[in-house]
Parts: sequence; C-alpha cells; structure tokens
Amino acid sequence: MPDFAEPLARLITEFKRLPGIGQKSAQRIAFHVLRAGREDAEHLSQAILDVKDKLGLCRVCNNIADGEICQYCSNSSRDPKVVCVVEEPHNIVGIETTRQFEGRYHVLHGALSPLRGIGPDSLKIKGLVERIAQGEVCEVIVATNPNVEGEATAVYLARLLKPLGVKVTRIGMGIPVGSDLEFADEVTISKAMEGRREM
Amino acid sequence: MPDFAEPLARLITEFKRLPGIGQKSAQRIAFHVLRAGREDAEHLSQAILDVKDKLGLCRVCNNIADGEICQYCSNSSRDPKVVCVVEEPHNIVGIETTRQFEGRYHVLHGALSPLRGIGPDSLKIKGLVERIAQGEVCEVIVATNPNVEGEATAVYLARLLKPLGVKVTRIGMGIPVGSDLEFADEVTISKAMEGRREM
Repeated sequence: MPDFAEPLARLITEFKRLPGIGQKSAQRIAFHVLRAGREDAEHLSQAILDVKDKLGLCRVCNNIADGEICQYCSNSSRDPKVVCVVEEPHNIVGIETTRQFEGRYHVLHGALSPLRGIGPDSLKIKGLVERIAQGEVCEVIVATNPNVEGEATAVYLARLLKPLGVKVTRIGMGIPVGSDLEFADEVTISKAMEGRREM
Repeated sequence: MPDFAEPLARLITEFKRLPGIGQKSAQRIAFHVLRAGREDAEHLSQAILDVKDKLGLCRVCNNIADGEICQYCSNSSRDPKVVCVVEEPHNIVGIETTRQFEGRYHVLHGALSPLRGIGPDSLKIKGLVERIAQGEVCEVIVATNPNVEGEATAVYLARLLKPLGVKVTRIGMGIPVGSDLEFADEVTISKAMEGRREM
C-alpha cells in the first residue's frame, strides 16, 4: 500500500469498515471527501452522529423512531389488527417497498440462535405478547428470514402466540419471481411445491 | 421509497452522494452505522472532518500533505532528477503500487479542457516550471490520463518544458497486460503498434 497522509489513511480505514466497501472504494470515497467542500463534509459527519443521538426504538414495536413512537405505529390509517414480525428494522424497508402491507410491525432485533447464545429472552418478544394480550391483534405474520434461525424463531412464535387466540401465519416460500427453476435449490423447490396454489 | 425517520433518511441521502454508493448500499451502510457503537460513529465522523482540516497541498508538488511538504518530496531517498506529472493526487496511488518509480511527483490538479473553460492558468503548472528552472530536474514523465484532455495537457507541457532543456517523456500506451487483443479498441491497438519494442 502506498503511504497516505495520516488523516487520509485513517479515513480510508474508517470507510473500509463499512459493509460492502473495499480498499479501492474506500480510497475513491476518501478522495471525494477531500475534494468536496468543508460544508459537505460537515453535513456527512453530522448526519452520522445524528442517527446515533436522535434515534431510538419505538416504545410499541421496537422499530427505529425519532420520537417515542415510530411512523407506522403512530399512523392511524394502518390496520392495528395485523402485525408483521421481522428480525431487524431494515427488513421493514423491503416489505414497505411492495406498498401492499397496510398493517403494523414488530421488530424482534434478532432471531433465535442457541449456538450463538441467543435465546427467547434476548429477543424483544415480551412486547409482542403484551400487544396481543391487549386484544386488538387478530393476525401475526411471521416474516423472519427463511434460514435456520428465522425458521426456529417462527416455530417458537407460533407455539407461543397461538394459545393467545391469535392467527399466526408465515410468509410464503418458493421460487423468486423472474428467476429460473434451474437455479433453485432443492429445499426452495420443495417449499414451492408445498406452497402450491390452485389456478 | 419507504419513510425513514428524518436523521436516518438524511444519512442515507448523504451516503448516496458519495461515488459508487446507490440507494441500497446507502441504506445498508446507514443501518450499519445505526447498529454500531457511538464511539465507532464518532471515529468515522471525526475522520471525515480531519481530512478537511488537517490536510493541505504540498508546497513543492501540490500532492496532499499533512504538513508543508508531502512524504515524497521530503523523502531524500527519492530521486529529485525525475518528476512524474499526474492530473490528480489519487493518480499517485496507482503509480506507487507498482513500487517501480523512485522519483518525485508533480500534481496539476486537472487537465486542459477548453470546453469546460480549463486553461493552463487553471492548472498548477507554474510551480513545475519553477522546479525545472532550479536546474535539478532532468526528466519529466507526463502521466496524465490517456484521453483527449490528458493528451492535450501532455502536448502542451512538452512544448512548454522542452525549451527549458529538460527531457519530456510520455507513459506508454497499448494493450493492458492480462487483456485480450479482441477487446482492445482501434486507437489502443494503433498506439500499441506505434509503441512496439524489439525483443
């Protein structure tokens, strides 16, 4: 590696720690910051601190919020009877881009993983049980990831929540739209066969 | 786009302004910052400001420097008789990774471009002429980009500097190593033919 002046080398190192940024991208971005005006650098720098200082978790659903309650929980036009459970706040982004879901969310902040020591107590499940106990929720859609941890979490939640008299559903699994059967693995294909629908 | 809380939306917008970062990468990085500790965010934030505050241009060659003089100009083991002229400070990175060049640099901070109103006065050429006038420089290697602006700059520099009694050379152009003749355009191939060497 060529020698960079210390502040530049440090900025490159910092950028490289971000996801998806390698040495070359980090250099390119660092030189961009160096060329940009000081005001632009200040805005970026301040924005980074602000997400740490001004954001917290929603008191109801644990989504990221800039107040007590997030924009989904405080939006009265969203149906409180349907709650979609996700692992992380950024999973909400994917669901929202479909513009199809009009219910509320609940963020677990993780998934069950005994190997990594993450049990039910490490997840934000208690708040979900309380929401259901209040009687307003009719259906819980479990949208945890389709992997071992996500499945385990889904099974755990179904066993926990069904006795409370609520309908628990799991998002459909199968061949992604626009893909090709050739590229699908056997587990996905068997899930697709299981989840077949009459035409 | 889904609604993000304001500080998060602002951070995503700021990241999207960086080169090579689109909406999805910006979201991923912003959520990473949100999850990271406050200390990590502070380090990144501070590093961004530091490159603006602690770095300046080398008094001799206009490279980025954290003092009066950059690490190449202040390194007495580097040959002051050979000066490599580049357009931007980041071009030095590419040349240094070869570990072959042992001379000094001169950064123009741009290339001639009459269409964009960039004439010789907009470039840092004066300092180069002064360095040559001091008599220590024997060869100037022009390593501006192999495009219209870089070529125009190289021709201009050759005409300006040769009368001062210095040797002016241009970096070789041809087929990139590891590439295939099939993918080379006609201008590159004709440059490669021109630049052929006896074996």
